[in-house]
Amino acid sequence: MVFDIKGDKVVLSKGSFAEEDFSYYGRLKGDGLELSLVEAAFLIERDRLELGVSLKEFMKRASGKQPYFDLKYVVYKDLRERGYYVQPSVTDFRLYPRGGRPGEGAASAYVYVLSERIPVPFADLVQKVKLTQNVRKKMLLAVVDGESDLTFYEAKNARMQGKMTPLTVDLSEADATLLDDRVVIWDQQHAVQLYGAGFYGKLVDEKLLQLSLLECAYLMRLGLPVEDGATNKRFTTRQFTRKANALEPEFVRKLDVYTDLRDRGLVVKTGFKFGSHFRAYEQVSDVRAIPHSKYLVHALPEDYVVMLPEMSRAVRLAHGVRKRMIFAYGGKNGLEYLDIGRAKP
Amino acid sequence: MVFDIKGDKVVLSKGSFAEEDFSYYGRLKGDGLELSLVEAAFLIERDRLELGVSLKEFMKRASGKQPYFDLKYVVYKDLRERGYYVQPSVTDFRLYPRGGRPGEGAASAYVYVLSERIPVPFADLVQKVKLTQNVRKKMLLAVVDGESDLTFYEAKNARMQGKMTPLTVDLSEADATLLDDRVVIWDQQHAVQLYGAGFYGKLVDEKLLQLSLLECAYLMRLGLPVEDGATNKRFTTRQFTRKANALEPEFVRKLDVYTDLRDRGLVVKTGFKFGSHFRAYEQVSDVRAIPHSKYLVHALPEDYVVMLPEMSRAVRLAHGVRKRMIFAYGGKNGLEYLDIGRAKP
Repeated sequence: MVFDIKGDKVVLSKGSFAEEDFSYYGRLKGDGLELSLVEAAFLIERDRLELGVSLKEFMKRASGKQPYFDLKYVVYKDLRERGYYVQPSVTDFRLYPRGGRPGEGAASAYVYVLSERIPVPFADLVQKVKLTQNVRKKMLLAVVDGESDLTFYEAKNARMQGKMTPLTVDLSEADATLLDDRVVIWDQQHAVQLYGAGFYGKLVDEKLLQLSLLECAYLMRLGLPVEDGATNKRFTTRQFTRKANALEPEFVRKLDVYTDLRDRGLVVKTGFKFGSHFRAYEQVSDVRAIPHSKYLVHALPEDYVVMLPEMSRAVRLAHGVRKRMIFAYGGKNGLEYLDIGRAKP
Repeated sequence: MVFDIKGDKVVLSKGSFAEEDFSYYGRLKGDGLELSLVEAAFLIERDRLELGVSLKEFMKRASGKQPYFDLKYVVYKDLRERGYYVQPSVTDFRLYPRGGRPGEGAASAYVYVLSERIPVPFADLVQKVKLTQNVRKKMLLAVVDGESDLTFYEAKNARMQGKMTPLTVDLSEADATLLDDRVVIWDQQHAVQLYGAGFYGKLVDEKLLQLSLLECAYLMRLGLPVEDGATNKRFTTRQFTRKANALEPEFVRKLDVYTDLRDRGLVVKTGFKFGSHFRAYEQVSDVRAIPHSKYLVHALPEDYVVMLPEMSRAVRLAHGVRKRMIFAYGGKNGLEYLDIGRAKP
């Protein structure tokens, strides 16, 4: 067989191969068939291509020619062996749906190959999701771990919308005090109303309500007066935010997300038990029968860089408790919500 | 009732109260009964103590007198309401077993109260576990989240011991190459032997073995020769470690733990899918029937500071997949293993 390695392609000369041997591999060019390095390695391993070098020699050379060749090979091989047609693409791979083939229908997903070791700016993921959604494809992340095992994730925009109506409780007469790092509502009437109307706070013996700093800051915007237990003076919203920010890491960022989600009609509670900032319910119509919360939400800073093992942990946990893992991302144009879940292509 | 607030104690004067009203609360002192602030607040809330101030006033004062009064109160109240006897102690609380009472038997656990918001140096946890284990008590962490909900964790030393015998495969003739960021063993004999004898690497088509950098570094110590695919030269152990350390975050620390666990007879594989460094098996006697892995292990640096939401996430995840969450901690005196799990006192 007459061939040439050009950059990251293997080119088989016209006439030196039987086209039917390579259907759906490579791309026909004027002067022959152009295979990507992963395609060629796969065919060599399968004894379907003979270039006069061993697999070892070929892979050593390929590895020197193309960054992350080994990662791409692991992903390509996995998908092909499970019966998918895959084409090299600017996004690493285009994946065809079951039964679909290159040239006989559209690809269903773009696959991005990642190493668990290499951190990824979250902004890149957001942008990639936009690109793929613009062309109505799925965006799949194929993460290769240190032992060459693969995990697929699908990332997509999440439409966060709840069914709660705006709060109508008159808060102006409520008796609320900040004690250390939480807020107590002492009067039973407001305690019970707030708890019942939007699952705010934690009701203690049907008498008191303990509010988190976030809940309190949100309710202050809706008119809740709060005194500082240490000085007996009423907080301005600004003073309270400053104080809360000193007490709680990432308070301001979390408050932005909390506020946005509450304003979208969701019920938002702490996600501490799940290691996320929030759990969120589409609706809580009766606090005596709290439904399953559908989402875990984590509020990320604008410059967040994803460590993939952390993402793996968060998504796995959410999956285990039948929730969607949502990352709230504070970009320049407001908040965006990305749903990242395990996928099985 | 005649009383006095002294520092963080409420002292009831002798003769001004009926002892039987306060059995198992407070401590009798020469001049009366000394209650801690949380005990007093609890009794006031229950209408069993009348100090002439409202609960609100009392709590505001207590909160100013004692750091983290509100957290301690949340924990004390929870435990008492679930029928436990609890005494204030240097470790926040001593907890008596079901049926046990102060003065009528020993406490079973020391309880440390933590706020989810406050980071904890891991070294502190290690030291506290030692202290409690020295006196044969359980060490419980009561973590209060932003909404005053409680999660209990038990921390204890883990005895990490597996049942694998030392590897006896002769590695001197193996053909291994580092390609990019993983190592391939090209000769079928060693590939199959290593995979079978200790579940090393990932066997590809029963022909090749892909090893992780950690597995490779460990096997190099046992005599595996490895060439650099880029230069065709054989690595010294030192060169390989340096290279791997550049490719993989925290490589050296993880290698210490990997090596220690393998030397203890455990089988160690990546924990990426679980968001931890490793999963570990007590034994893999047949690779065709891989058993359940018992542990997730995360290798922490010596100066590690625990963010409790992260710990919560790790422990919750491990629990969900029926594994123990083990934190390997590299202190000055070698590695220690701490098992942290959810507890229900």
